[in-house]
Amino acid sequence: MIADFQVWSKNHQAHIETSLETLLPTAKFSPDHLHDAMRYAVLGGGKRIRSLLAFAAGELSMADEERVTIAAVAVELIHAYSLVHDDLPCMDDDVLRRGKPTCHVEYNEAIALLVGDSLQSLAFQLLAEYRLAVTPQVQLEMIKRLAQAAGSRGMAGGQAIDLANIGKTLSLPELEFMHIQKTGALIRSAVMIGACCGNSLNDSQLKNLDHFAKYIGLAFQVVDDVLDTEATSETLGKTAGKDAKNNKPTYVSILGVKQARKLAEKLRHDAYQTLEIFGAAAARLRQVTDFIIQREC
Amino acid sequence: MIADFQVWSKNHQAHIETSLETLLPTAKFSPDHLHDAMRYAVLGGGKRIRSLLAFAAGELSMADEERVTIAAVAVELIHAYSLVHDDLPCMDDDVLRRGKPTCHVEYNEAIALLVGDSLQSLAFQLLAEYRLAVTPQVQLEMIKRLAQAAGSRGMAGGQAIDLANIGKTLSLPELEFMHIQKTGALIRSAVMIGACCGNSLNDSQLKNLDHFAKYIGLAFQVVDDVLDTEATSETLGKTAGKDAKNNKPTYVSILGVKQARKLAEKLRHDAYQTLEIFGAAAARLRQVTDFIIQREC
Repeated sequence: MIADFQVWSKNHQAHIETSLETLLPTAKFSPDHLHDAMRYAVLGGGKRIRSLLAFAAGELSMADEERVTIAAVAVELIHAYSLVHDDLPCMDDDVLRRGKPTCHVEYNEAIALLVGDSLQSLAFQLLAEYRLAVTPQVQLEMIKRLAQAAGSRGMAGGQAIDLANIGKTLSLPELEFMHIQKTGALIRSAVMIGACCGNSLNDSQLKNLDHFAKYIGLAFQVVDDVLDTEATSETLGKTAGKDAKNNKPTYVSILGVKQARKLAEKLRHDAYQTLEIFGAAAARLRQVTDFIIQREC
Repeated sequence: MIADFQVWSKNHQAHIETSLETLLPTAKFSPDHLHDAMRYAVLGGGKRIRSLLAFAAGELSMADEERVTIAAVAVELIHAYSLVHDDLPCMDDDVLRRGKPTCHVEYNEAIALLVGDSLQSLAFQLLAEYRLAVTPQVQLEMIKRLAQAAGSRGMAGGQAIDLANIGKTLSLPELEFMHIQKTGALIRSAVMIGACCGNSLNDSQLKNLDHFAKYIGLAFQVVDDVLDTEATSETLGKTAGKDAKNNKPTYVSILGVKQARKLAEKLRHDAYQTLEIFGAAAARLRQVTDFIIQREC
């Protein structure tokens, strides 16, 4: 089973990389320096966890893999844009991302700003351009879902709360509220729009899948906080220890490493439980869950 | 006729303002400071020319006005986001917009960045959320059109070319190419998605409308360049003379004021010609054309 997952995830990571390469504009088109920088920011890195979740959810709803690919690409573009903007000097001011200089270091701040802006537009363009679902109406719902996840009551809103909380002591529920938006919303939309590419799930199935996605989004963040404390910059491909350095509240700063790991295990258990109604059809989602909890970078 | 247009445009500007107020998230929802800043950046200013074009194009296709309103709001949100990001220190570094301090001056750079990001997401969310066209498929095409207009081969791409050209001497065709993307693409999409809310136009009508939108987009920029030279900051509500100060090539720097005004008149003539096939149904589009050419701010 583990060997099977390793093959599956490697194949899908490679497939997403190729698809991003094909769908991103090339430097053959004007403005070449902007297109070059967009490719720099997106290609050649990342674990593509959001894509793996979309593919696993697509397997659950028996979705055509090429449709899920476009949905996954859109989510990766939104994720990549958020990293480029988060790394800017006025935000987290970071110089290392996916083992390379950040976009504004390699190019400049103005280009990095426009890279992020353009990647967001491209994500919605692709979701509207290709046929992705049984009906165009379902596709509109997918677009709405991704837009909500990215916006002021999702990812961008979570980032605003994060910045406002620097140096503050948060309670566990306050930290959870921030992360449900900052990282959770996009992970949740990856699962849901991956599933929307296939056969319609009934309300109870959709509800369970959404709960699963919520647990897994939080689990991802808890593990991220642990890795930020325990791993090296070299392993992570990004600056390690920066939450503590930036005086940001994290699961580790509130709970300590040991209790944070316990919380991740509890979230895995909760996530597994929500998948029970799907039986064997959710096998891949369980494997991606394990991958998220056990990863070392 | 002129009095009639003044009433129509005032009514529609007021209607767009009210609709933006209703559709933007309020500071009652978390994160309140981000929502507050989004409203600051969008409300209470601007001529809403893109909205007027969308409404006029909607009259041509006999579109339901409430549908055009959502489309116009989406275009205004994209426009407002671009102004917030363009004003940032790493871009044009401006302090005055619509007669008020720019968003990053009133709040801070990080919030201004997230305001722009969130406004872009909200535009696509609204276009996907409401029923806007005869079929969901047409609505997907509207989303694709707006996303293309906003992205790296539209508005954001034009801004990248603009920044790369600072201090350079451009030929008239090079300047035109930049502006077709930087301001033209969004104006064009305002016309086209306004029309898409109504009855389907045939291919020849769509082609003419697209040509109209291209001419009007260029005319808008030529007049903008003239006003940047001739008007005061007080009249404009933004810093006057900043193109010359920033050493940016403009229609005025290449042609001089007199020839630039002549070019605007030529573009009005070309725009009128493309509307001929529509007869009286395009009366409103002709009026908005005149408004764009004759405006003094």
